[in-house]
Amino acid sequence: MADDPLKNIRVVLCETAHPGNIGAAARALKTMGLAGLTLVAPGRFPDPQAEWLAVGAVDVLRRARVCASLDEALAGSAFTVACTARPREVAVPMVAAREAAARLVEVARTQPVALVFGNETCGLTGAEVGKCQLLATIPADPGFSSLNVAAAVQVFAYELRLAAFGATVRNGSGKPPEHATHDEIERFYEQLERSLLKAGFLNPRNPKKLMARLRRLFGRTQLEQEEVNILYGVIKTLATPKSKRSR
Amino acid sequence: MADDPLKNIRVVLCETAHPGNIGAAARALKTMGLAGLTLVAPGRFPDPQAEWLAVGAVDVLRRARVCASLDEALAGSAFTVACTARPREVAVPMVAAREAAARLVEVARTQPVALVFGNETCGLTGAEVGKCQLLATIPADPGFSSLNVAAAVQVFAYELRLAAFGATVRNGSGKPPEHATHDEIERFYEQLERSLLKAGFLNPRNPKKLMARLRRLFGRTQLEQEEVNILYGVIKTLATPKSKRSR
Repeated sequence: MADDPLKNIRVVLCETAHPGNIGAAARALKTMGLAGLTLVAPGRFPDPQAEWLAVGAVDVLRRARVCASLDEALAGSAFTVACTARPREVAVPMVAAREAAARLVEVARTQPVALVFGNETCGLTGAEVGKCQLLATIPADPGFSSLNVAAAVQVFAYELRLAAFGATVRNGSGKPPEHATHDEIERFYEQLERSLLKAGFLNPRNPKKLMARLRRLFGRTQLEQEEVNILYGVIKTLATPKSKRSR
Repeated sequence: MADDPLKNIRVVLCETAHPGNIGAAARALKTMGLAGLTLVAPGRFPDPQAEWLAVGAVDVLRRARVCASLDEALAGSAFTVACTARPREVAVPMVAAREAAARLVEVARTQPVALVFGNETCGLTGAEVGKCQLLATIPADPGFSSLNVAAAVQVFAYELRLAAFGATVRNGSGKPPEHATHDEIERFYEQLERSLLKAGFLNPRNPKKLMARLRRLFGRTQLEQEEVNILYGVIKTLATPKSKRSR
């Protein structure tokens, strides 16, 4: 079993015409932890424009394998998926990108697999699709389904990463926020009610569910300890006439 | 309720420096059925390079709203999500792109919402993030998490479309394939067994589960009617000595 199934995935770009797309694809792969870029008969490669668009992924570009044919590119692949924007006459089964990614990662845990993209203008030929076991497509607007090839690589690479490592993210500032406790929050509500009564905003003979609505608002926000302290201070200060505040 | 929640989503690009990225973002949006492109203080716009990279999405580009400030761009938005590649000190909660898309689409069924992307080099400032209710990030390789801004727009637009309309795709050639029936398949297995016996490949005194293995192989493939007819013909022809074949 490979520790990282993404290392067993090669991404094959067939006859890519614009070097900028090769560079952008390299960057897209690297952001998702993929590196196995394989180029079949690229239009212009290497090329300064590819390097310019690869930005920090020039290493992926330089390690790219250049092949003369798709057969050469697919040698050793145990499961090969062709990406296409349109249904084909050939009855190769077609699934959405998400499902294709899950199936690729499953095989990639033990054997090399490949994901194949066609030329910018014509996509993959019928013969190229025939060398693959599965067709995958990115669900798109039927009226305009033509993703740029590097954009399509980005979406597939993203789904592959999620299939391998899940969709969770580490949250913000390192340590999790400390939620305020029940009694801290109740102390704030008491201060709030006192202040509103004193200011005449809350009429004790006609309270109109004001406190209930305020409780609902603050209840929803999951107040943190520091926040409840700030709010307590704000309310207390506002409710104290300026002349009586300590300097 | 909007019929199409995607119509209620505006995508705000802040101070985008390269017009090519604006064009590529317009194309990314259009492929996913989104159109509400909003530009805050773009570096160069309009620009021929933006049109060149928009390809068939020049209409989205031309209808883009150009604003002087993020406040102007967000007027009317009932829920605003900031996209970021890195956790922030500000304790705005952060979720993965997929969850952010689901929450945006939920609100967008009834009210306008916004998704905000920062400048290519610096991302969003703390002040810009402070105007948003939620941070969203694309899970990426921690060692190289810098997606191109148009690539990030593509991934988010893709997740928004899936959140609105699901991940299913229509399969291939229009009419679903006709699966072969039990009796058609059994007729093929009988022919296969007869042919293998005749050719001496199958030894009746030591069959070694050969037929069981062949059944397992063909069983897995969900044979279609046309395929089983082809296989039947192939086996029958191969098993008939050339001299005996009808011309």
